[in-house]
Amino acid sequence: MLRHRSESQLKTADEYLESLRKLKLNVYFMGKKVDNPADFPLTKPSQNSVALTYSLAHDPAYSDLMTATSHLTGEKINRFTHIPQSSEDLVKKVKMLRLIGQKTGACFQRCVGMDALIALSSVTYEADQKLGTRYYDRFNAFLKYIQHEDLVCNGAMTDVKGDRGLRPGEQEDGDLYVRVVEKRSDGIVVRGAKAHQTGAINSHEIIVMPTIAMRDDEKDYAISFSTPSDSEGILYIIGRQPNDTRKLEDGEIDVGNARYGVAGHETLVVFNDVFVPWEQVYMCGENEFSGPLVERFASYHRQNYGGCKTGVGDVLIGAAATIAEYNGVQDASHVKEKLTEMVHLNETMYSCGLACSHEGYRLPSGTYSVNPLLANATKHNVTRFPFEMVRLALDIAGGLVATLPSEKDLNSPEIGKYVEKYLKGQATVPTENRVRMMRLIENMAFGAGMVESLHGAGSPQAQRITIFRQANLEAKKNLSKHLAGIKDQM
Amino acid sequence: MLRHRSESQLKTADEYLESLRKLKLNVYFMGKKVDNPADFPLTKPSQNSVALTYSLAHDPAYSDLMTATSHLTGEKINRFTHIPQSSEDLVKKVKMLRLIGQKTGACFQRCVGMDALIALSSVTYEADQKLGTRYYDRFNAFLKYIQHEDLVCNGAMTDVKGDRGLRPGEQEDGDLYVRVVEKRSDGIVVRGAKAHQTGAINSHEIIVMPTIAMRDDEKDYAISFSTPSDSEGILYIIGRQPNDTRKLEDGEIDVGNARYGVAGHETLVVFNDVFVPWEQVYMCGENEFSGPLVERFASYHRQNYGGCKTGVGDVLIGAAATIAEYNGVQDASHVKEKLTEMVHLNETMYSCGLACSHEGYRLPSGTYSVNPLLANATKHNVTRFPFEMVRLALDIAGGLVATLPSEKDLNSPEIGKYVEKYLKGQATVPTENRVRMMRLIENMAFGAGMVESLHGAGSPQAQRITIFRQANLEAKKNLSKHLAGIKDQM
Amino acid sequence: MLRHRSESQLKTADEYLESLRKLKLNVYFMGKKVDNPADFPLTKPSQNSVALTYSLAHDPAYSDLMTATSHLTGEKINRFTHIPQSSEDLVKKVKMLRLIGQKTGACFQRCVGMDALIALSSVTYEADQKLGTRYYDRFNAFLKYIQHEDLVCNGAMTDVKGDRGLRPGEQEDGDLYVRVVEKRSDGIVVRGAKAHQTGAINSHEIIVMPTIAMRDDEKDYAISFSTPSDSEGILYIIGRQPNDTRKLEDGEIDVGNARYGVAGHETLVVFNDVFVPWEQVYMCGENEFSGPLVERFASYHRQNYGGCKTGVGDVLIGAAATIAEYNGVQDASHVKEKLTEMVHLNETMYSCGLACSHEGYRLPSGTYSVNPLLANATKHNVTRFPFEMVRLALDIAGGLVATLPSEKDLNSPEIGKYVEKYLKGQATVPTENRVRMMRLIENMAFGAGMVESLHGAGSPQAQRITIFRQANLEAKKNLSKHLAGIKDQM
Amino acid sequence: MLRHRSESQLKTADEYLESLRKLKLNVYFMGKKVDNPADFPLTKPSQNSVALTYSLAHDPAYSDLMTATSHLTGEKINRFTHIPQSSEDLVKKVKMLRLIGQKTGACFQRCVGMDALIALSSVTYEADQKLGTRYYDRFNAFLKYIQHEDLVCNGAMTDVKGDRGLRPGEQEDGDLYVRVVEKRSDGIVVRGAKAHQTGAINSHEIIVMPTIAMRDDEKDYAISFSTPSDSEGILYIIGRQPNDTRKLEDGEIDVGNARYGVAGHETLVVFNDVFVPWEQVYMCGENEFSGPLVERFASYHRQNYGGCKTGVGDVLIGAAATIAEYNGVQDASHVKEKLTEMVHLNETMYSCGLACSHEGYRLPSGTYSVNPLLANATKHNVTRFPFEMVRLALDIAGGLVATLPSEKDLNSPEIGKYVEKYLKGQATVPTENRVRMMRLIENMAFGAGMVESLHGAGSPQAQRITIFRQANLEAKKNLSKHLAGIKDQM
Repeated sequence: MLRHRSESQLKTADEYLESLRKLKLNVYFMGKKVDNPADFPLTKPSQNSVALTYSLAHDPAYSDLMTATSHLTGEKINRFTHIPQSSEDLVKKVKMLRLIGQKTGACFQRCVGMDALIALSSVTYEADQKLGTRYYDRFNAFLKYIQHEDLVCNGAMTDVKGDRGLRPGEQEDGDLYVRVVEKRSDGIVVRGAKAHQTGAINSHEIIVMPTIAMRDDEKDYAISFSTPSDSEGILYIIGRQPNDTRKLEDGEIDVGNARYGVAGHETLVVFNDVFVPWEQVYMCGENEFSGPLVERFASYHRQNYGGCKTGVGDVLIGAAATIAEYNGVQDASHVKEKLTEMVHLNETMYSCGLACSHEGYRLPSGTYSVNPLLANATKHNVTRFPFEMVRLALDIAGGLVATLPSEKDLNSPEIGKYVEKYLKGQATVPTENRVRMMRLIENMAFGAGMVESLHGAGSPQAQRITIFRQANLEAKKNLSKHLAGIKDQM
Repeated sequence: MLRHRSESQLKTADEYLESLRKLKLNVYFMGKKVDNPADFPLTKPSQNSVALTYSLAHDPAYSDLMTATSHLTGEKINRFTHIPQSSEDLVKKVKMLRLIGQKTGACFQRCVGMDALIALSSVTYEADQKLGTRYYDRFNAFLKYIQHEDLVCNGAMTDVKGDRGLRPGEQEDGDLYVRVVEKRSDGIVVRGAKAHQTGAINSHEIIVMPTIAMRDDEKDYAISFSTPSDSEGILYIIGRQPNDTRKLEDGEIDVGNARYGVAGHETLVVFNDVFVPWEQVYMCGENEFSGPLVERFASYHRQNYGGCKTGVGDVLIGAAATIAEYNGVQDASHVKEKLTEMVHLNETMYSCGLACSHEGYRLPSGTYSVNPLLANATKHNVTRFPFEMVRLALDIAGGLVATLPSEKDLNSPEIGKYVEKYLKGQATVPTENRVRMMRLIENMAFGAGMVESLHGAGSPQAQRITIFRQANLEAKKNLSKHLAGIKDQM
Repeated sequence: MLRHRSESQLKTADEYLESLRKLKLNVYFMGKKVDNPADFPLTKPSQNSVALTYSLAHDPAYSDLMTATSHLTGEKINRFTHIPQSSEDLVKKVKMLRLIGQKTGACFQRCVGMDALIALSSVTYEADQKLGTRYYDRFNAFLKYIQHEDLVCNGAMTDVKGDRGLRPGEQEDGDLYVRVVEKRSDGIVVRGAKAHQTGAINSHEIIVMPTIAMRDDEKDYAISFSTPSDSEGILYIIGRQPNDTRKLEDGEIDVGNARYGVAGHETLVVFNDVFVPWEQVYMCGENEFSGPLVERFASYHRQNYGGCKTGVGDVLIGAAATIAEYNGVQDASHVKEKLTEMVHLNETMYSCGLACSHEGYRLPSGTYSVNPLLANATKHNVTRFPFEMVRLALDIAGGLVATLPSEKDLNSPEIGKYVEKYLKGQATVPTENRVRMMRLIENMAFGAGMVESLHGAGSPQAQRITIFRQANLEAKKNLSKHLAGIKDQM
Repeated sequence: MLRHRSESQLKTADEYLESLRKLKLNVYFMGKKVDNPADFPLTKPSQNSVALTYSLAHDPAYSDLMTATSHLTGEKINRFTHIPQSSEDLVKKVKMLRLIGQKTGACFQRCVGMDALIALSSVTYEADQKLGTRYYDRFNAFLKYIQHEDLVCNGAMTDVKGDRGLRPGEQEDGDLYVRVVEKRSDGIVVRGAKAHQTGAINSHEIIVMPTIAMRDDEKDYAISFSTPSDSEGILYIIGRQPNDTRKLEDGEIDVGNARYGVAGHETLVVFNDVFVPWEQVYMCGENEFSGPLVERFASYHRQNYGGCKTGVGDVLIGAAATIAEYNGVQDASHVKEKLTEMVHLNETMYSCGLACSHEGYRLPSGTYSVNPLLANATKHNVTRFPFEMVRLALDIAGGLVATLPSEKDLNSPEIGKYVEKYLKGQATVPTENRVRMMRLIENMAFGAGMVESLHGAGSPQAQRITIFRQANLEAKKNLSKHLAGIKDQM
């Protein structure tokens, strides 16, 4: 942790990309070790998305959204490293995410680590207050470092879980949830794996958190810590996603969104007896705070989806409106109705994201919390509406999305003329443009982003459970009893 | 306009009810003149709902939501007469409406006039600025009077419209939109009728506005004015609503929500050549401002539905949760899922209402506007979700909602024992309570409130048109073109 | 059972109405005994609906659907008394129900008893085969009587159930499910009550069935029998439904559907120690056949909803299309889209009703069974689509549905001219017609029929349980394993 | 047309595959000519699907569904070459399609040509009857050849269409709809291209039909003919689909459905001045029959989706149920609810497919027509329900679908052990099985099949237009007027 910088805290995109090259990550894809992960074409688009979180911070037009003032140091920092100190901060978080979603049409990955930081900032404080532990200072030291160095953190929560019908300790293999396997004087040794780690190899630090509320007999699983992404014993296995290898072909059109990809890459991160010094440990056995950490992280992360996914939704709506024009059907009333529906669904998700932020409240540490009920409603809508939006976009685009020849056909000296001639839509629009737009829609419709809409920040059922718990049904029952003239209210 | 009061501006509920008795309204129901409208049992529940907007303002627990400080006089006023001077004011408006929705389970009517006041506060200002008219001062004088006297205004926008395929001037009968039929030195004479006038006979003043943007050849229809509700020439015909006459039976259980009714009463208000002095006229021929007045009123009114209907939704959820208990099925997983879904839908509507408020902005007059796109999304969700919520509540309640004997059966010396015995649910719950709760659900499911969810503040299609217009599709198209690598952005 | 007729089996509507007058029913409404139930204005419309099942049988245009040939006697009988002997019979059942739904816009009640007959026809046979009982002959004797006399049966299944979390025998009051309280040499004595008995007082006979599969310790609840509707000890309490008392006002427009009403009346039927001779008993203690009887009845009854409710749906679609014209918006594209959606949903329900019939199969008794999986899918769609259809119809109709003055206002010498003038829609359409159509829509939207769509033939969850059970998931799992290349198929 | 066979008409799968090798097709993929299309790994799975239509016909268990008796020759033929002579034939068509959908989990392509044959069988007859042309005999000669040789036809309807806001003749390039460019004594010369040609290179013959109803000034576009798939001047360009090149990698797990692929391949078929002898021409200028041909083909093809897609749905349901087990959540109530919902939606689609078939009717030629209204409702549901089913399957499967490492990782000597260890679900299930099932779900969720569900057999809007036209709104309006007591029925 000695890589300090004296100049301005805000890294440039280039500095960020350069910093990735210095990491010694142990990465695999399709059974082979990736020699130079920082320049691996398959993950390049996801890296570009992260890089945009740096370059936009230097753009005066966006600095209000993209940057903030550290409550620890007063320095100007990237908002992705900021702990919200007000509802306004929470709102700006959502607006920043929509902005970048609009500019990438994809996941930009950096919010997971941001939410890990935010969640830890209050939970470590509260644990210390109650249990007399010393996590909060430790965490703040780490936070200062992240803010000052302007680093990307990977927030690693989701354990691989094995048999989901069993608790961590009931699994045949005790490693299916990340756990402490040794406690030493200088630190702990951890083993296990975290699944679905978005943007992990584009990160400098990994922040591990428990995946569920742990019981008293599961204290070894109640751990949270940070560790540099290239720590010894960490292995990254990049998962496959729809059309991943198109990024390895030459050409750029068939990829659809060549610069930013549709989702970040997703990685299985294996912790092979990784040593973590105590100064980087933020929970170790305090299982009563594992639940709050999970819930708080989840609420912040569910809030996000009202931002990033509506930004991505804006792109999809724009693509549907554009392809309607290219197809010559922009004036058909049913097309307008479908676009209207897409906008309505998108703005409903956004409204939820905004509302849970505006209705935030101060926690004892000074960190602001979103309204958990509304944050869960936000994400729950995101498990539904994007599917309908994709369906409508595909409806407007037409069957060509699934039957479109390759750019190599379009550019072929032999048959290119036929593709050019017969895939022409509205006469003034170059065929290539129509092809490009179809590919963008394909990219967004059949991408890992749809699964992320469902399962990112927890599955639909996770939100439903929280919504039910947060609903305050007793108060509502009393309202109804009062109006029905029933006396025995509880 | 001479009925001034020197003491505190906040009327009590009793003072309000008393003030209604002084009005000489010309009211009909089912073909008969209603002798004493202020004490007419059929409209009494709707009156009680309005009265609650007075009594709650005196409750310290709610004064932050229920009252505000007049920007004109600095006096403490009922928020229903307040012009929002900040986003916070807009948010409080929504929260106040949810509060009263929770307490009435019904429409409380006073928001229509509130929104008319708010819309006029900025449109009169802007018209004066552009056209050199003098409406703003006139309006403010009226507003001071309303605030000081703490009066209820009826906001009268929806014309009867005749053939909706034709413009106002194209109708066979030119009176199907309210219009000026004579201009005199001291005022104007108006003729026409306004439909669906919620709570009209519980109001002190009527504020008339045009129902659509008027064209240059429709200047006679571009009028706005206020007039005391008992002005000469005004006729009120109360429309029928589901189960209206149950309020005229003795007993209270069968009504379902005996105190507050499910909707306000709805009235056809006929203007039979009503004279309006110039000092009460706020638009007369400035048709270019008719569209803005309509849109602004509509946005404020669509915002509301994220408040009042979620309050009503809380009652419905509470009723469903209670009847589940009474039926003994509160632990069934499908029942919990249905309650969760109801809560999710309700909070989504609320989030939209909050978001369009928090995202408000200052207009030139100082009045704050809601975000129109989000306000329209709010109301559009209200045209859908309450129907699903009702369906789920009926599902949980069971068939008894449609087959339940009368309270007179329950109380019958002859057969009451059978009703008591056989309609028993969970053993510790008195049968009467179960009956009462079923009736409340019936009242909410089969009430005029469902039509109001659809058509209040404009039909679903009105919102869709606005959403499409507000969507900024060009910007979205550019986002998609940028990502698809298409150069010719617009 | 001595009231034989020698002439043609097909009663006329008048003969039917006359036969009702001969019944000595013990009926209550709103705490008062109904003196002459057969001429009670409140239930007259429901009676007219049943009467139509008689008159249409005499119409040559419909005789193929409305009549059948008895498999017992070869006589021409009303199809409502027929036991399906082929898939074609099952299909005609659905088509007959759609036809009458179209002509009544309401429930016509006679199908419940029909399905009770059909279900008993196979279950009594199978019980006899397995257990050596003698129910089948007994049942056939009863069936011949019903067919020959052309009688209406009330199929009484739904017990009042008390606490739904408890089994029949676990209730505090053992009578909350109908049970045998005494077995005598000449018959049995039964006690209990059946809820939601549609059209009970328009029936000649009541056929009681158990409401769930009974266990070995619940044999007293495993009973089925028939009894004349005016048997000693039977009490009918008519439940309240939306706008029920409008039928008691003079005038006919406000009722909406003056001739047929929207639902049948619904009755709580109390069995106060009713004696039933053995010859009318079709199950008494054979609890292993209670489940099959319930399921079979439910399947036939769920099938029906693909018929009757699509007939009613046709009326609603027609009403929406008509009111669109009256309002002058019939050419608006969004109106056409909404009508299209209504038709699509309606025909989907119908398709399910047809499919489960065409895919019927022969049971050992010769009776044809519907396909249970598809029959449950049929009804399950009916718990959803009519709600969306109503929402769309209300959308098209406009707010007037909830604010429309009474016909008494329209006809008032004093104010009728204003109603006439201001409620005019498209200029060539008399205002009264527009009012009538609005009232019909109100009647269909806010009627007990919506609850019936949900809970008739069992609640939504009842269908879901059956669908899950009938899904043959093991076979589907094997299909997927085969394609995934997984060897260990079950 | 000389390739006659004297032995049994039913080809084996091997004979079919061998016959493809004899074709001299001009095929391109990604800009390169495909040397040996019959053995091209990318299209092999789609070929296997077609081959299954041959092998199943030899399986006695399925011969009733898979084969039929030619109405022309009395020979036993594959049902894919059969013209339905009864409603039963129509029903078997749907059941056959569900069967093969279950066995392939994919599109098997052969139904497009089948529907082209069926549609032409009646339209050529009716054209001859009205216009005195001689198409019917010509067509029957072709049909006998297809039946006897047991060939696969590609039904080529969808023109590339250019600007969809313009008619064929209004396009800048007149070739954007296939047209006759020369009429010669021995035949015609055609030019243009057909898009989205499913399974084209797995076919022996192409049957061209117009894509819309042509006007009098568009007679050159009103053409239908057949031509061997390897005719001179025909060019095939294979479009790209999600994950297409995974089929070119070694390994089989990552493909998901290695044997059958998820969709057929889709091809742009270019007709470069192709000569067609008159004996293969079935319409040439008789534009009044172009509409009927399109509509009839569309109805048959929309019918199919109630079969094939429910078969594919069975696989998806099975995969979801299996992965639930592998994940250890098979007993969670929300998982059961989701599986139930999938089954319900699937059976609803199937019911529609069955109903439109059972309700078929005889056309003048003897060919049976489906019920067009119900056939359109069938397909319209298929444009919706599979999207919800996929969403539910992804929900149950979990995030791993989008983050799963490659089979090469699983098999890697280096890191395979980690994948094996950490992707373990329920303890007794081999990790590989879990991986395989996840990949199958990925394959079905992110496949071209979803676009096909939307656009196959016409876009959603095409069905809506037909549904509106077929709805008989006038009759429905009269039903409502009758019940509302309105006299002036139309």
